[in-house]
Amino acid sequence: MSSSDLNKQILALNAFDQRRAGQLDPALADRVRRRQDLFGSASVLFYDQPLEFVRGAGCWLYDADGVAYLDAYNNVPSVGHCHPTVVTAAAQQLARLNVHSRYLHSGVMDYAERLLGTLPAPLSNITFTCTGSESNDLALRLAARFTGADGIIVTETAYHGNTELTGQASPSSLQPGSIAPRVRLVPAPDSYRVPAGELSDYFANAVQEAVLDLGRRGIGVGALLLDSIFSSDGVFADPPGFLRAAVEIVQQAGGLFIADEVQCGFARTGSSLWGFERHGLQPDIVTMGKPMGNGYPIGAVVTRPSILDALREREGYFNTFGGTAGAAAIGNAVLDVIEQEGLMANAQRVGEYLRQHLRELGERDPRIGDVRGAGLFIGVELVDPRDPLQPWGAASTIINAMRERRVLIGAAGRWGNVLKVRPPLCFSNAHADQLVSALRDALDATPSSP
Amino acid sequence: MSSSDLNKQILALNAFDQRRAGQLDPALADRVRRRQDLFGSASVLFYDQPLEFVRGAGCWLYDADGVAYLDAYNNVPSVGHCHPTVVTAAAQQLARLNVHSRYLHSGVMDYAERLLGTLPAPLSNITFTCTGSESNDLALRLAARFTGADGIIVTETAYHGNTELTGQASPSSLQPGSIAPRVRLVPAPDSYRVPAGELSDYFANAVQEAVLDLGRRGIGVGALLLDSIFSSDGVFADPPGFLRAAVEIVQQAGGLFIADEVQCGFARTGSSLWGFERHGLQPDIVTMGKPMGNGYPIGAVVTRPSILDALREREGYFNTFGGTAGAAAIGNAVLDVIEQEGLMANAQRVGEYLRQHLRELGERDPRIGDVRGAGLFIGVELVDPRDPLQPWGAASTIINAMRERRVLIGAAGRWGNVLKVRPPLCFSNAHADQLVSALRDALDATPSSP
Repeated sequence: MSSSDLNKQILALNAFDQRRAGQLDPALADRVRRRQDLFGSASVLFYDQPLEFVRGAGCWLYDADGVAYLDAYNNVPSVGHCHPTVVTAAAQQLARLNVHSRYLHSGVMDYAERLLGTLPAPLSNITFTCTGSESNDLALRLAARFTGADGIIVTETAYHGNTELTGQASPSSLQPGSIAPRVRLVPAPDSYRVPAGELSDYFANAVQEAVLDLGRRGIGVGALLLDSIFSSDGVFADPPGFLRAAVEIVQQAGGLFIADEVQCGFARTGSSLWGFERHGLQPDIVTMGKPMGNGYPIGAVVTRPSILDALREREGYFNTFGGTAGAAAIGNAVLDVIEQEGLMANAQRVGEYLRQHLRELGERDPRIGDVRGAGLFIGVELVDPRDPLQPWGAASTIINAMRERRVLIGAAGRWGNVLKVRPPLCFSNAHADQLVSALRDALDATPSSP
Repeated sequence: MSSSDLNKQILALNAFDQRRAGQLDPALADRVRRRQDLFGSASVLFYDQPLEFVRGAGCWLYDADGVAYLDAYNNVPSVGHCHPTVVTAAAQQLARLNVHSRYLHSGVMDYAERLLGTLPAPLSNITFTCTGSESNDLALRLAARFTGADGIIVTETAYHGNTELTGQASPSSLQPGSIAPRVRLVPAPDSYRVPAGELSDYFANAVQEAVLDLGRRGIGVGALLLDSIFSSDGVFADPPGFLRAAVEIVQQAGGLFIADEVQCGFARTGSSLWGFERHGLQPDIVTMGKPMGNGYPIGAVVTRPSILDALREREGYFNTFGGTAGAAAIGNAVLDVIEQEGLMANAQRVGEYLRQHLRELGERDPRIGDVRGAGLFIGVELVDPRDPLQPWGAASTIINAMRERRVLIGAAGRWGNVLKVRPPLCFSNAHADQLVSALRDALDATPSSP
């Protein structure tokens, strides 16, 4: 595969290929064509046979015929699709007041205080946004203004957002060769290929090299921006603490560490509310998005007052839909559900159970090279059974076969060969059993050399 | 005033000044301090005596004591605060399904089709976002990729968003002197100071000069990005058509015209659904935001397929919360209300009535130099009665005096001296009478030379 093919695969792995429209039944083909006409080349549909859902509840999505699909992919409806506590909070607050934050509002302040209470004390100022992209865009600007240095270090298959600036920091959505001069890519901390005892040094050395290079070019290091579960890079979680050395190098060089919690935050990794806590890190900025509002667009940036001041001295920042009374009521309800239903402990327990059963599957199928992750963020690396350090290129086939078995998963990794399992946090052992059974069947139905 | 003072005034005109916290009653001071501690220097509260609302309905906002304030400022709750049709649509869809757009969904396609049906045929692809900032960020990137030219032309007090890229195109939120090399500022088409017969040439000449300068520097013109009601510049609407010459210059030079409809779209200007229609323009890209979801974060970018393709060849674009089933149901309900309640005609009729009565007020008070606008987007320019081309610096005093009279308005313009009247579109003649009466009282209570 050329690097361009690889990149396309990552961008669109598991995506419906318009050139295969002829293979759809006529009714579905019509709907897909209508959609394509409306959204053009920005239209991305999942699956060789795209799905249409009409209803969601808990870990389930239902099509128009009432057929249920087990959702092990979607992390936005993090406390469960259409959770009644969240929906009720939304309906009540949207009916009462939902206006911007230039007026005082108790609900907004209570929510801000509650969130800040979950974070280390120096991080005492919160700015609400609407999306993880807006959060990371603001965070990268804060870092550049505060440090006076534009350099950004990210991992080689990272994704951090869809704005111009966050897009530059998202090599997974760029064609190769279009990396901006201010951005340095470091290899992901590939815990499958690098021994656990060497992983910290491996990653720290790569970051050190990037810091030195940014220094040599007169750019300087403004930010190390990391999603500590390495969602797009292929899910690397262990050993906890392996990120500390790299973060310290950046901070000692005057750069800021931005913990992107869009993927790993809000209890997903099981042992802590925030991904950076698993590694014992001290972020300078924390960014939030996706699961924060269970589907309602909410994001946030949390940092130290002095960092926020550095931006505000030069420019204004206001986010019209950020931190409205509606967003706060919904975000607060999400935290309520996480607490009331013990979803962090559930993520830990069910995640462990699921990894154990996936590993058992791997013992009888050498195409499963690795099962890893934390809580309910799990990666299953598919490898060539003849050379287990090489990717097996059939992830898309497996994902489509899982879809035929009514289980939804995704893929990640630089070769697109890591199955990404990232269900709502109310996932149960029974759901895990169903997923493992579907994966066993999908693997059995897929020849090793397609 | 120094230019720095001017800029601060625009950024924060009408904002609570933390240094005056001692003048608040102790309970309010406590709440303001709590808010300041949480949000830090990004906290912007309106008014010398900040307000706290607990409920909204129609054109009214209510504080905890049930005191009603007439809202003539907020354009996001465009069909009225907490409109029951929109709230019901939200409650129903959020309870049913609210997942990203990589699956098919009838509601999302129906809404996309309905919106596209209101726009000129060549603009046939829509990309949903969550905010006007995300929309303009994407639009500016589309223009740069399609044209191969990075240059951006905006008016000198424009506001187009809060991302890194849109912030560069928003001189109203930047300190003077921090304009990026790729950005050219042109004077706003100041219809108060430039005769109507000269306005088209005046603006076109400025744009022509910017195009030539971008060419000379080897940057080239990628986009002319305009809000056709010039919301931040001070509200310039007439004569319709005065923008055509400038837009044609840019398009003939190979640049794209981006119509920023975040402020003027969705029927606000009364005679048409979109602001660019008033001027008979043919945009290459149309961006939407604020009023689109009546408070729920929705935005969109509409363009020609070839322009979208130019971006997609090089990079991915996906917006997790953009174009969900929930967003579509809510956006659709907003269009329903606009149609069912005849809000476009109402904006036209009540806007005309309000301008007429404001002009009558101006006939007896020379500090009102000009009353202008379209539909329910109205500017009232406050001037020095001894020299009516000079700003009267008391806009903030007047806005606070209006607040004491329980009417909410804002300000705009390069000197911050234009009262910005921009109520929900269900504003009535009776509301207009109340606003005019409050403004009369506020002016009478404010000495000409403070």
